[in-house]
Amino acid sequence: MTIPSRVKLVDVGPRDGLQNEKSPVPAAVKIGLVHRLQDAGLTNIEVTSYVSPKWVPQMADNHEVMSGIARQGGIVYSVLTPNLKGFEAAVLDRPDEIVVFGSASEAFSQKNINCSIAESIERFAPVVEAARAAGIAVRGAMSCTVGCPYEGEVAPERVAYLAGLMKQIGVQHVGVADTIGVGTPRKVQRAVEATLQHYGIDDISGHFHDTYGQALANTLATLEMGVWQFDTSVAGLGGCPYAKGATGNVATEDVVYMLHGMGIETGIDLDKLVDAGAYISDFLGRKPNSRAATALLAKRAG
Amino acid sequence: MTIPSRVKLVDVGPRDGLQNEKSPVPAAVKIGLVHRLQDAGLTNIEVTSYVSPKWVPQMADNHEVMSGIARQGGIVYSVLTPNLKGFEAAVLDRPDEIVVFGSASEAFSQKNINCSIAESIERFAPVVEAARAAGIAVRGAMSCTVGCPYEGEVAPERVAYLAGLMKQIGVQHVGVADTIGVGTPRKVQRAVEATLQHYGIDDISGHFHDTYGQALANTLATLEMGVWQFDTSVAGLGGCPYAKGATGNVATEDVVYMLHGMGIETGIDLDKLVDAGAYISDFLGRKPNSRAATALLAKRAG
Repeated sequence: MTIPSRVKLVDVGPRDGLQNEKSPVPAAVKIGLVHRLQDAGLTNIEVTSYVSPKWVPQMADNHEVMSGIARQGGIVYSVLTPNLKGFEAAVLDRPDEIVVFGSASEAFSQKNINCSIAESIERFAPVVEAARAAGIAVRGAMSCTVGCPYEGEVAPERVAYLAGLMKQIGVQHVGVADTIGVGTPRKVQRAVEATLQHYGIDDISGHFHDTYGQALANTLATLEMGVWQFDTSVAGLGGCPYAKGATGNVATEDVVYMLHGMGIETGIDLDKLVDAGAYISDFLGRKPNSRAATALLAKRAG
Repeated sequence: MTIPSRVKLVDVGPRDGLQNEKSPVPAAVKIGLVHRLQDAGLTNIEVTSYVSPKWVPQMADNHEVMSGIARQGGIVYSVLTPNLKGFEAAVLDRPDEIVVFGSASEAFSQKNINCSIAESIERFAPVVEAARAAGIAVRGAMSCTVGCPYEGEVAPERVAYLAGLMKQIGVQHVGVADTIGVGTPRKVQRAVEATLQHYGIDDISGHFHDTYGQALANTLATLEMGVWQFDTSVAGLGGCPYAKGATGNVATEDVVYMLHGMGIETGIDLDKLVDAGAYISDFLGRKPNSRAATALLAKRAG
């Protein structure tokens, strides 16, 4: 297998990264972050979600954010839509892609959305149908594909089962997510292999967390399988709700540093990306949770 | 190439990790750290150096530390010896292995030890000869094998040149070090390939820094070449003198987490290793610079 020569990154920072922030982040700051990400060359940005503000108050400004972005051609603006009501609100704001989700762990599904995996997918079926009818792309986020905070290791068969359900309802692309960051190279390869039973390599992305420092090794291991699409989060936004103080989403800066060092094109300007991460980190009053950003900012400071 | 089923780690924390600490670390604490590392299953520990205390005051207690360790059979206690005077002091403390060093970057050699690469190796020749005569193993640390803080990228040919000089003077084993952490998977593979011109795969170890977050990906990339020996530093001890506040040596905990997750044996007890890292980090008044340790300690705290 030849390692891909070009990689596409989806920056999930504005949505996945910010959604658990306790203090409200103003819509203008979120818009400023999206603008900096698109200026840095990101071509796919997960902007917000259309979830009840009772569950996720940080995303209550979804309409304001989506309508405030000065959109550029060629960029995919994605939003999370957990149900038909969310989709109907989202569609008014013209997203290019919607994200639906499911868990490979039965325990996680029950604890988080209070229903079985199969039931959760059934609920998404009309959302996917409506999106496809409206000509909007659909991405399926598959969580807990390696490990689960409630049931431990998750078998590849469970990943294949979930991927099969996603395929059945018409989801075009799936992300293999290691939600709690416990994956190591062989384990994430097995999760991707299981997904390959239902999706081609071009319809699979990797979504790795750096909780145990494994995200770049896992990215490399799946790159070696031909995976060329990954979700990352600028400045490593988004902690780990299952290990207080630990790291969550892998930082976009660290992934870009690796890819560029390997001669792989991303279309991203790393300096501008570091600026985008510094912008949101300054607002949040903390340092970027990215080793590459930390080192590059230290070099700038001289 | 099959990935090795067993890996040997050399914990360089007590020497490489602590040497730049500004405040003196008492010998008793260093000994306590070595004891905890050997209890955790480390079989090779870089304990101290025999350098002039004018240059490295933190290692002035080398004799006290070496003679205070309750040694266990089967463990290799290594020390750094920069010259014959250092070696003669070291030999009285019965190290199992000495470490000599050289840079693949001419500029780094000139700036750091004020002589050319070839001159530095000539100076080590009598040290290596004396060690071999005394039946002490010799390891050669090759610094800046990917990049240099003064001259930028370092060509693989320069690594091959240094490895050839090391071989000529009788050094039995060399470490391929990415001293400033700028390496990415293909670049470190090329540095190892260059070293293979003079050394077999069993006589090469990897020494990666996590300054840009790349160390585990680099470890994986060289594991895939058959490298099975790596230098790591408990709790990520040892910052990066070339980027203030940035990470230096890769944390032993993060590497062990990856290896065990891949089913690779190390003989190390990760929980005890985390204890060793917490012990020295508590003394230094900071948190372990290891994502795996941070997540595991957060889980313990519940």
